[in-house]
Amino acid sequence: MHREKEINVSPIGFVKRKAKKEDEKDRSLVCSIVVEKDYEKALDGIEDFSHVYIIFWMHEIDDAERRKMKTHPRGRIDLPLLGVFATRSPLRPNPIGLTIVELLERKDNILVVRGLDAFDGTPVIDIKPYNHCDKIEDVKVPEWWLKLEKEKKGEY
Amino acid sequence: MHREKEINVSPIGFVKRKAKKEDEKDRSLVCSIVVEKDYEKALDGIEDFSHVYIIFWMHEIDDAERRKMKTHPRGRIDLPLLGVFATRSPLRPNPIGLTIVELLERKDNILVVRGLDAFDGTPVIDIKPYNHCDKIEDVKVPEWWLKLEKEKKGEY
Repeated sequence: MHREKEINVSPIGFVKRKAKKEDEKDRSLVCSIVVEKDYEKALDGIEDFSHVYIIFWMHEIDDAERRKMKTHPRGRIDLPLLGVFATRSPLRPNPIGLTIVELLERKDNILVVRGLDAFDGTPVIDIKPYNHCDKIEDVKVPEWWLKLEKEKKGEY
Repeated sequence: MHREKEINVSPIGFVKRKAKKEDEKDRSLVCSIVVEKDYEKALDGIEDFSHVYIIFWMHEIDDAERRKMKTHPRGRIDLPLLGVFATRSPLRPNPIGLTIVELLERKDNILVVRGLDAFDGTPVIDIKPYNHCDKIEDVKVPEWWLKLEKEKKGEY
């Protein structure tokens, strides 16, 4: 079971935003991922994909936040109290972020992307191309999720 | 930039397959994720989603494999030699696996899922619900990916 084996993760790059205090929740914003020079070759061919997954480490989440088991989606007490694994909340035992971004450009070791909800300086731990197999057709989600989505679209 | 800050990841559970030597690439197979009892509450509400992302640590990838920068998709030399970040290969600096699975059942701390391409005993490091925002409409992928996909569907 290898339960004893260490999980040894290192950043492969960092998020760079135009301003330190940009609203990272605004998915229309463009930012960069500066990949370590040692890994530049590992990006070859990525420019042929329109979208990629960015897997990052939410380094500002503290130990108390990592111990939280339940949360209200977006902190809204009118929505159900849920286990953190039933949400995309940054509060989770391993604060791993997963976001699909639009890949606008690759310049050597730098990816220019749109839609990354991560702070300036966030360590990136993996990058994977998004493909058609990631589009699941028959998806079921709970009522609370549909409610949030309708609000976002201004239907409420 | 917090470059010095340690990335401290612990398993939140482990993959359990019916047989040690099942073909984990067969996406029709069902297996379980046994979440640590301490995290059982963090699953509350996940049963209302039909699909979830499983983020896992490919613990059988060794240090030499982690240093590989380029690979042929599926090891096929008739396909281009690509940077590992342009592929979903397990060879990558941080061997993090990302798979969307069908969530069939939750029994206390156990998730029964279909389609997880991970070995028996693989440490799971995060679980996130899949929602409609993860379905990207205008996706572009390279020729080599389309070729592989056509072969899979028996069109070649």
